[in-house]
Amino acid sequence: MKKIINQPEHVVDEMLQGLVFMHGQLVERLDGYDVIVRKAPKRGKVGLISGGGSGHEPSHAGFVGRGMLSAAVCGAVFTSPTPDQILEAIKAADEGAGVFMVIKNYSGDIMNFEMAQEMAEMEGIEVASVVVDDDIAVENSLYTQGRRGVAGTILVHKILGHAAETGKSLAEIKELADALVPQIKTIGLALSGATVPEVGKPGFVLEEDEFEYGVGIHGEPGYKKEKLQPSQALAEELVAKLLQDFNAQAGEKYGLLINGLGATPLMEQYVFANDVAQLLKDKEIEVVYHKIGNYMTSIDMAGLSLTLIKLEETSWLEGLEAAVETPAW
Amino acid sequence: MKKIINQPEHVVDEMLQGLVFMHGQLVERLDGYDVIVRKAPKRGKVGLISGGGSGHEPSHAGFVGRGMLSAAVCGAVFTSPTPDQILEAIKAADEGAGVFMVIKNYSGDIMNFEMAQEMAEMEGIEVASVVVDDDIAVENSLYTQGRRGVAGTILVHKILGHAAETGKSLAEIKELADALVPQIKTIGLALSGATVPEVGKPGFVLEEDEFEYGVGIHGEPGYKKEKLQPSQALAEELVAKLLQDFNAQAGEKYGLLINGLGATPLMEQYVFANDVAQLLKDKEIEVVYHKIGNYMTSIDMAGLSLTLIKLEETSWLEGLEAAVETPAW
Repeated sequence: MKKIINQPEHVVDEMLQGLVFMHGQLVERLDGYDVIVRKAPKRGKVGLISGGGSGHEPSHAGFVGRGMLSAAVCGAVFTSPTPDQILEAIKAADEGAGVFMVIKNYSGDIMNFEMAQEMAEMEGIEVASVVVDDDIAVENSLYTQGRRGVAGTILVHKILGHAAETGKSLAEIKELADALVPQIKTIGLALSGATVPEVGKPGFVLEEDEFEYGVGIHGEPGYKKEKLQPSQALAEELVAKLLQDFNAQAGEKYGLLINGLGATPLMEQYVFANDVAQLLKDKEIEVVYHKIGNYMTSIDMAGLSLTLIKLEETSWLEGLEAAVETPAW
Repeated sequence: MKKIINQPEHVVDEMLQGLVFMHGQLVERLDGYDVIVRKAPKRGKVGLISGGGSGHEPSHAGFVGRGMLSAAVCGAVFTSPTPDQILEAIKAADEGAGVFMVIKNYSGDIMNFEMAQEMAEMEGIEVASVVVDDDIAVENSLYTQGRRGVAGTILVHKILGHAAETGKSLAEIKELADALVPQIKTIGLALSGATVPEVGKPGFVLEEDEFEYGVGIHGEPGYKKEKLQPSQALAEELVAKLLQDFNAQAGEKYGLLINGLGATPLMEQYVFANDVAQLLKDKEIEVVYHKIGNYMTSIDMAGLSLTLIKLEETSWLEGLEAAVETPAW
């Protein structure tokens, strides 16, 4: 294992210290917890939290700040955060108008966020939530009932963050979230496995000329291994799967997120973007929002994911475009 | 070679098409050229251009936009752009008040930018420039007389971009640049080599447990290979070299840039940042500006660089902090 770290068991703690050092104007760490909270003063709006296992940086702590998350809970690498940590995030995010939780669809995350919700409600904090299950690659998976939650989650953070910032109520945010999540779909591919520091070797190994469609952000198996193909062929497969799942029609408006998984340079992401652009144009899909970069990574995995969001409401696009103050949006 | 590309010889062209598709609100491509220009209307200010070989994305095209570059010239991968391409960038950047060129210190870049300057001057455009040589790792190198220009270049873009945006004259920007460049110093390390698509294999190979201090962003040799060490030890070496080169004194104010080289995840960059923070605190160096992420990459090289800028003028910090509209700042 070749990594710039100290002791593997201290990676999350030291990473969070580093994050707070680098972005200290925007965020701080809750004393004694693996929770990153925004510094902006409270003003009675709905609190918005998310989190999950670490290893997906900048998700989720990089999206804490004005206009997005109030707090992010950072579990051990690829491991759900514990209920006591989530409870502290809820309490820190609470401004008196309730707290909304964005949960990626993994069984451990759901169990622990729901347990924290019960504990918070006993302390008199109103809590609601949504489960993001945007990964259309496979139904059910290693740690998941149904579809996995992946890169599309950051679009949920962004649109709900804008809703909370502009004073929407907890009930309104819940309604928005329930309408939004089914309109966000993602599919990815991996060229290599990710190495969890405490494990010391990749979670899976692909041959030198092989890649895999549909791998999860924790290295969960995908749906097909093939010999490496040109970017155009990869884009064709991923775009076709997404448009089919949406039952997309010519003339519809979408937002597009191309997400690097950690070790794939922007050079390749842009080449892939060019192929995606051509395919969407051919299908007369109108792309009205674009975002590219490493946002929901899988440590040092090479590969990328493609997310489409069907923009059914004008306010969703406004939410995506609104200015924010966060470490990583 | 495992890359998400089509034909290697089309990588730069397709990448630029993808970039323009993803950031079409901010930038466009000059018809028939590998030049990315900002879309903002001209208003008589100094034009600011930069560029160099491709493979360092988001540098430099990702820094085109309001508040930073007027245009970026994108050469073939790791290859200086040609004078005719640079000339077009100068002409596109010209708003009538002259054009300033930020050149990284590589012999081919300097020769071609200077040739383009002569051609532009014959067309009546006033041109001035600065050569950035921030890499303190080695004196002279494969493609360089003196020190190489690396990640610190983006801080030059940012501060000069702000100066141009706020109406400074070409002579004032030249004076600012000449004062600024000696106060920016960088040093890096690599865990792996970069693979140029048209070459198909890494430019150099390190053993499984080996890394190299001071490697250049084109894979130029560094100054020392060692067995992999903890992040703390790496930070100690790099911080000590920088502070020595600055002859830094307790109480001085610096800005800090931690730059990933392409394949090193944020997780490791933050762990390293935490170690750097402790070392600078011990030396009573005050860090008043922080930036972290992949900004001056070397395709898919694993590793990072550390840049310090000594903030001698308050206006330099203002320049770093000013809002911009670019794809990647």
